[in-house]
Amino acid sequence: MSKKIITIGEVMMRFSTPGHERFLQANTYHLTFGGAEANVAISLAQLGMKSSHVTAFPDNDFGLAAKAYLRQMGLETDLVFLKDGRMGLYFLENGSMQRSSKIIYDRFDSAFSLFEGEEIDWDLVFENVDWFHWTGITPAISQQAADLLLNALKAANGKGVTVSGDINYRRNLWQYGKGPLDIMPELIRYTHVIVAGKTDFENCMDIQADDWITCCYEAKKYYPQIKYITKTKRESISASHNKLHGVLWNGSEVINSKTYEITHIVDRVGGGDAFIAGLIYGLMHMDDQEALEFATAATVLKHSIPGDANLVKLDEIIDLMNEKNVGKLMR
Amino acid sequence: MSKKIITIGEVMMRFSTPGHERFLQANTYHLTFGGAEANVAISLAQLGMKSSHVTAFPDNDFGLAAKAYLRQMGLETDLVFLKDGRMGLYFLENGSMQRSSKIIYDRFDSAFSLFEGEEIDWDLVFENVDWFHWTGITPAISQQAADLLLNALKAANGKGVTVSGDINYRRNLWQYGKGPLDIMPELIRYTHVIVAGKTDFENCMDIQADDWITCCYEAKKYYPQIKYITKTKRESISASHNKLHGVLWNGSEVINSKTYEITHIVDRVGGGDAFIAGLIYGLMHMDDQEALEFATAATVLKHSIPGDANLVKLDEIIDLMNEKNVGKLMR
Amino acid sequence: MSKKIITIGEVMMRFSTPGHERFLQANTYHLTFGGAEANVAISLAQLGMKSSHVTAFPDNDFGLAAKAYLRQMGLETDLVFLKDGRMGLYFLENGSMQRSSKIIYDRFDSAFSLFEGEEIDWDLVFENVDWFHWTGITPAISQQAADLLLNALKAANGKGVTVSGDINYRRNLWQYGKGPLDIMPELIRYTHVIVAGKTDFENCMDIQADDWITCCYEAKKYYPQIKYITKTKRESISASHNKLHGVLWNGSEVINSKTYEITHIVDRVGGGDAFIAGLIYGLMHMDDQEALEFATAATVLKHSIPGDANLVKLDEIIDLMNEKNVGKLMR
Amino acid sequence: MSKKIITIGEVMMRFSTPGHERFLQANTYHLTFGGAEANVAISLAQLGMKSSHVTAFPDNDFGLAAKAYLRQMGLETDLVFLKDGRMGLYFLENGSMQRSSKIIYDRFDSAFSLFEGEEIDWDLVFENVDWFHWTGITPAISQQAADLLLNALKAANGKGVTVSGDINYRRNLWQYGKGPLDIMPELIRYTHVIVAGKTDFENCMDIQADDWITCCYEAKKYYPQIKYITKTKRESISASHNKLHGVLWNGSEVINSKTYEITHIVDRVGGGDAFIAGLIYGLMHMDDQEALEFATAATVLKHSIPGDANLVKLDEIIDLMNEKNVGKLMR
Amino acid sequence: MSKKIITIGEVMMRFSTPGHERFLQANTYHLTFGGAEANVAISLAQLGMKSSHVTAFPDNDFGLAAKAYLRQMGLETDLVFLKDGRMGLYFLENGSMQRSSKIIYDRFDSAFSLFEGEEIDWDLVFENVDWFHWTGITPAISQQAADLLLNALKAANGKGVTVSGDINYRRNLWQYGKGPLDIMPELIRYTHVIVAGKTDFENCMDIQADDWITCCYEAKKYYPQIKYITKTKRESISASHNKLHGVLWNGSEVINSKTYEITHIVDRVGGGDAFIAGLIYGLMHMDDQEALEFATAATVLKHSIPGDANLVKLDEIIDLMNEKNVGKLMR
Amino acid sequence: MSKKIITIGEVMMRFSTPGHERFLQANTYHLTFGGAEANVAISLAQLGMKSSHVTAFPDNDFGLAAKAYLRQMGLETDLVFLKDGRMGLYFLENGSMQRSSKIIYDRFDSAFSLFEGEEIDWDLVFENVDWFHWTGITPAISQQAADLLLNALKAANGKGVTVSGDINYRRNLWQYGKGPLDIMPELIRYTHVIVAGKTDFENCMDIQADDWITCCYEAKKYYPQIKYITKTKRESISASHNKLHGVLWNGSEVINSKTYEITHIVDRVGGGDAFIAGLIYGLMHMDDQEALEFATAATVLKHSIPGDANLVKLDEIIDLMNEKNVGKLMR
Repeated sequence: MSKKIITIGEVMMRFSTPGHERFLQANTYHLTFGGAEANVAISLAQLGMKSSHVTAFPDNDFGLAAKAYLRQMGLETDLVFLKDGRMGLYFLENGSMQRSSKIIYDRFDSAFSLFEGEEIDWDLVFENVDWFHWTGITPAISQQAADLLLNALKAANGKGVTVSGDINYRRNLWQYGKGPLDIMPELIRYTHVIVAGKTDFENCMDIQADDWITCCYEAKKYYPQIKYITKTKRESISASHNKLHGVLWNGSEVINSKTYEITHIVDRVGGGDAFIAGLIYGLMHMDDQEALEFATAATVLKHSIPGDANLVKLDEIIDLMNEKNVGKLMR
Repeated sequence: MSKKIITIGEVMMRFSTPGHERFLQANTYHLTFGGAEANVAISLAQLGMKSSHVTAFPDNDFGLAAKAYLRQMGLETDLVFLKDGRMGLYFLENGSMQRSSKIIYDRFDSAFSLFEGEEIDWDLVFENVDWFHWTGITPAISQQAADLLLNALKAANGKGVTVSGDINYRRNLWQYGKGPLDIMPELIRYTHVIVAGKTDFENCMDIQADDWITCCYEAKKYYPQIKYITKTKRESISASHNKLHGVLWNGSEVINSKTYEITHIVDRVGGGDAFIAGLIYGLMHMDDQEALEFATAATVLKHSIPGDANLVKLDEIIDLMNEKNVGKLMR
Repeated sequence: MSKKIITIGEVMMRFSTPGHERFLQANTYHLTFGGAEANVAISLAQLGMKSSHVTAFPDNDFGLAAKAYLRQMGLETDLVFLKDGRMGLYFLENGSMQRSSKIIYDRFDSAFSLFEGEEIDWDLVFENVDWFHWTGITPAISQQAADLLLNALKAANGKGVTVSGDINYRRNLWQYGKGPLDIMPELIRYTHVIVAGKTDFENCMDIQADDWITCCYEAKKYYPQIKYITKTKRESISASHNKLHGVLWNGSEVINSKTYEITHIVDRVGGGDAFIAGLIYGLMHMDDQEALEFATAATVLKHSIPGDANLVKLDEIIDLMNEKNVGKLMR
Repeated sequence: MSKKIITIGEVMMRFSTPGHERFLQANTYHLTFGGAEANVAISLAQLGMKSSHVTAFPDNDFGLAAKAYLRQMGLETDLVFLKDGRMGLYFLENGSMQRSSKIIYDRFDSAFSLFEGEEIDWDLVFENVDWFHWTGITPAISQQAADLLLNALKAANGKGVTVSGDINYRRNLWQYGKGPLDIMPELIRYTHVIVAGKTDFENCMDIQADDWITCCYEAKKYYPQIKYITKTKRESISASHNKLHGVLWNGSEVINSKTYEITHIVDRVGGGDAFIAGLIYGLMHMDDQEALEFATAATVLKHSIPGDANLVKLDEIIDLMNEKNVGKLMR
Repeated sequence: MSKKIITIGEVMMRFSTPGHERFLQANTYHLTFGGAEANVAISLAQLGMKSSHVTAFPDNDFGLAAKAYLRQMGLETDLVFLKDGRMGLYFLENGSMQRSSKIIYDRFDSAFSLFEGEEIDWDLVFENVDWFHWTGITPAISQQAADLLLNALKAANGKGVTVSGDINYRRNLWQYGKGPLDIMPELIRYTHVIVAGKTDFENCMDIQADDWITCCYEAKKYYPQIKYITKTKRESISASHNKLHGVLWNGSEVINSKTYEITHIVDRVGGGDAFIAGLIYGLMHMDDQEALEFATAATVLKHSIPGDANLVKLDEIIDLMNEKNVGKLMR
Repeated sequence: MSKKIITIGEVMMRFSTPGHERFLQANTYHLTFGGAEANVAISLAQLGMKSSHVTAFPDNDFGLAAKAYLRQMGLETDLVFLKDGRMGLYFLENGSMQRSSKIIYDRFDSAFSLFEGEEIDWDLVFENVDWFHWTGITPAISQQAADLLLNALKAANGKGVTVSGDINYRRNLWQYGKGPLDIMPELIRYTHVIVAGKTDFENCMDIQADDWITCCYEAKKYYPQIKYITKTKRESISASHNKLHGVLWNGSEVINSKTYEITHIVDRVGGGDAFIAGLIYGLMHMDDQEALEFATAATVLKHSIPGDANLVKLDEIIDLMNEKNVGKLMR
């Protein structure tokens, strides 16, 4: 029977300029939807898992369109609520060559940031759930969102659900009067798999060290429930050409995946989410090394797909792990 | 020498669905820009007037793109400021047949709404200016915008500039704690030409009467500086087929323009702004009857043009007034 | 609590030429999906009903995309199966003026036509269902499809579910060796609301009479379980301009709806399905006259929307019935 | 066996703005090709005739693309030459409602205008040809083009080919030092069917009269070889709505076709060429009244098709003549 | 005088997703046409040869559009027949980076597969023809197609026409009851130039060996009329980056062409057909080494062009062979 | 206070095929505008300079659209004149991989080529101007353009304005009876910074030498006012992959910039203009080495942007010079 995951977080309308047009030039925009946590849920739905996303949208046509998108991508939407507030938006200018991609966020006062979730019976939600995933974006948005997440985490832990959290520190958020160190440590205490780089350790966990591994061991001291810490390492030769591999610390050793050259990048937004989704799937179905290779192959494929979501199937990831059918013409 | 006009107001990015797609369907949006007052300024620039628009945009790529749009359309942009705040947005679903068009506004907390305009020397601005135009949208947005407008109006009156104001009452605005009757009467006191229908009279001037003409005479009692009151009368047979004509009260009589059947409407947004721009041009260059016919012909043509702005030339309006070259193929 | 409907039938990929391009000209096609019965289900889902569609798609990316579309449009897809066979296709050239629209079907050997449905427990399916809808297209496709439908109808009747059937006689189908008179009468025997015009009566029920009402009374004689017979009457002045109204016979009298002029038609495909969906909704929630007016207003709005599905909301239909907000600009 | 027609004339690249965008707005243009005489040839090829067009293009990628277009549309291109000179261009802004469509021509110094045709053996060309068609645009372009046409006309008459000429007087052409009265009379002397309105009679034949019929009889006096004179009468209610019918004088009487209301016009460019093509086909296969009805039905259908060419089939025209399948959905 | 080639085979409508969108995402498709043999004919027409393609299409608008495409691309279409049956279709999802491209074929029961060609006088067809080209796709489709091809081959051999055959083994075809070894050997017996890799030798000629050259010598034993065997060697670093070169065995030695790095691939479909067309042209006009270099340069350029067909001119291929004007801006 | 630059030259409409379509395939073209000198002015306007361009357009909608474009891109347009003559045009087919890009020019008889500029008071124009830039395209177009430029150069020198000239020798221009050696030397005599490669030295200055540096010293002998000579060195590995760096001779030494690999090129047209603009900015604000690095970084970024103009901001160029934020995702 297929495993079940719950994710929580804001989903935004994403307007991107066509081709490599700059914001100054574009008079047509492509619309899709995206949000770090929903991206993870969609990846896992494409891999065959039952995935349900918790969020709130404005009670207007955009909220309905966003919900329809989540359904189209295979999510269960029983926990999608239509409420007061704006639709969160983000605008993407796709870079090329040495020119960076740019994102303009416009997400303050969104329906999700105002959502208190009183209608949710969290204990019921986590019945028969295998995994819960959150990111550090949610508690950075508003006090309501931080509280909502804390409630969810407590319930998930109560039900014995495995929890992953992508720390994902973003300086431009956190504008509601609290700082990450006020909020994040408590949330991390309920989390078993964390995604964190050195700035995340420093800003959200107050852990500083010269190298990432030391940070991992430090983290384990304060948060003994942590089982895995992970990250991707990316070298940006240009906006069109990156090298990347995954790193996983499992409490006793650091594992590195194969390194991929990815040239001719189509869309790198959501690459991190694809990696996490891959790792979640992997940790549920494979050993640690395989799980990491699976996660890395998943994020590589994401870079070839327009939009936030990693629309790939299980066999495509497995094939890439095994260097099979790479860049061919499949008839 | 060409006449000079100043306008003031918010300009938004306008995202519209292609063809007649609904918000639920669209995954491509067309971007242009629009705002009632800037639409008027652009119309007049197309007719050969010097037109300068006062506004504020966020200091990011969208602010630059919006300013570039105003320049492209022929406006002077010395009084366009890049400041803190969001870009105002609106989203348009173009109706058809019996199905109405829909607009979703997303304009709160825009750079314009926060703009206090301390850097503007209003007396200098109104040197050698012939006309100043405002709408009731500006004071409905925020206290800052209402104050900014009041300063402008005082200076304009001080310099003897003719002032027009489109009352344009919108219930969904006015959310900053003041109501229209708190604010509008003082602004109207500095205005010579007003655009008002019966709901405008009632909500913004506290004038109620059975018929529009009585409202006009009542208004004159309380605002003796008013010289003209005007409006368009529109009958919506469907989203694609309207009938309309213009009405002008000049203090002594009511004048009606010819009535137009407009079928196969391309875009009716900005129709009212095109009418006002036509009337401003007309009152500066023609007698009252001609001015009204000119204004009505201008708004008719607007309905054939995608986007907010009435991109027509003087001879096109004159031709339509004279029933010349109507719907032909001009080689 | 919202009512539940089940529909059954083939869903095809629909490729249409852009604008009014002819097949000979087009090198871009718009893709959406459509099928008479699923169109009905989607309409009802948009009105707030629980709608589940029974169908089969090929087990490839097109099958997945079609299923994703149904989910996006609000349907439950537990009864969508991925099986052997092709994806049914249809190609649409959108007419204009006096020039007719053209459809090229390419649906033979589709996964649905080969689907035997052995995995379906029909009794379970019809638990707590309020309505079941089928059309005469399904039994015209293949013996398997006809058998599948018959099984469903028996179970639905067994559970006391109200059944509607759109006779929808199409000469070009029925190529598997049986004729409509071999198959349809048995199916109609399980049906309470039928959509039929005079050619349907003649070809599928062997009933001929000079006028439609007589046909209705004749039908009642042979199929005493029938409660309603309905149809739309359409006058095609051009591909862009039709007049239409609905007609409903309720066993004792014939009711006519208001007649609508619909000019500037955007897309008339699915107009009949929108009518039926409206009638189903209406008969469940209103009196006969209102139900018919509701159905007619629903189909009118469909003509303004690109694609097969009638993406309108309850209040939009109600407003049109009441001549409110017709062809306006809703801010 | 199918009849054969030869046409001669310039073919231009046609760049049109999308939808109803004005030249000031457009940043995408649709490319097709068009020229009055080639439009006629293409219409006739679609009706099943052998059609060969004589023209010259620049010897570059645009010349090849233009030739490829003619082949695609069914013409024989043995008499298409690649030579020195520019590609003729025209730019179309598609009007709507009361706003006229606009064409900007950019055709001077085209390869066709410089083409002397020395490589053509005209006697050979007209072997087994049934009809030759020219327009007054060709001799208006350059002395070379006028001479080329005269040579063709002499040979066509020598071979007993029926000749039609569309006088099509355009004031903006005729810039090479000759006027229409210097050139056109000699060309008309070789022509049996002419398309002419009153301005054509006056400017190209020096015939003035109060009414068109008198012009016809006058023309016959000076050009006794003329058998038919024809024209369309068009009333432009708007750019989207015209009324039109055809008129044919056959030497003894004036025949009028049925009048059509054409609303929701897609593209009226090439309407006249579609009429002439229809008349040529009609006069070869029907009696005079039928030929005129056929021609008028043909031009009506053209207005529904984007591009210069009338891409309709024989049965579509016949059906419209017979008021069959008008504006339906043909499955 | 230019050489003449005949090709035979199915031509399909090709619908491809835009950019790098996946089938699950696309709602717009680009249409062009393609088929291995017609692709070869088009390449050769672009190089100035007389090229005529033998095929059958359905007698509907798609058949006409496909025929028009072949004419546009420069082919003679006297041997294109409109018959019963479907239009063959294929759908392309363009890969990128490590993600493979995907093709979904939908070609069963096509007009071509049912075509028996009784109306063709093959001896007449091959009068004055220099070359005949076929592929192993045709006999894999249906018994009718295999018989049709055999008839053509016999006639071609009877007239002394050089014959090339691209073995092109595809496991998914061959569903009509015969296997490749039942059919291919007889066809190969009439063929002088074959394109074959090791799987082709094994499956269609029952020849297995450790290396390709041994296969070639084996083939010559059984098919002594063979003069050349050729193939391309492609290394797929990713969907966007391949290395390739051509290999030619001329009965006495194996020749290798220069190896090209092709990065930033636009469209690799039809790459093999471009190679064969280049080789056919080369073998008619150059020595073996030059012919192979020409063929390889031709296929390299194909990868830069969207669509199936290699729309390049003679001088472009020659320039690339000579490393002249590579990747420049040609003004 | 920001510096002011004047540029002079023709601006053309630029129609480019979408994606990598060839001219033979395209039926949609993207329109933008471009001209070497205006491209420089726009680059500098984006960097914050006051930039005014001198040119003439036809007095029609295209002239207005071109002027609107220049305004949109930040130029002052007081010296843009609407006159008789055509709009200059160019058509771009964007290459890929080994396939070169192609430009078809169609600029003869343009309004600019006929423009005599009698309405310009050059002394007034150059008041308070810091820099004047011209290219060798202008004097190559017509005698009028050469004279106009000479007048401008004399006035610029009279006012002490620094002058740069991009020699830019193009063999296909120079068709009005004069050769470059008749005209260019006098113009160069008024110029302080020249852009020249070896063919420029030879054809426009009659200077030949084995190496570029010797040419520079030779040039200085004849044109002692020259302070800088510069060029870019570009290696075209393919149309998608170039290497380039800048070279600057400052009278005493040759400076080379860093060399950039630019893969995944979006649009290389205007690359040279971006370099010159960068150098002009650099020489006004930095030392020689920094100026050259700035210019080279500027041209690198241009290759990532569709259209002629280098729409980058100061900090983007500075960042690239400093290898900061290269190819990242900037949130």
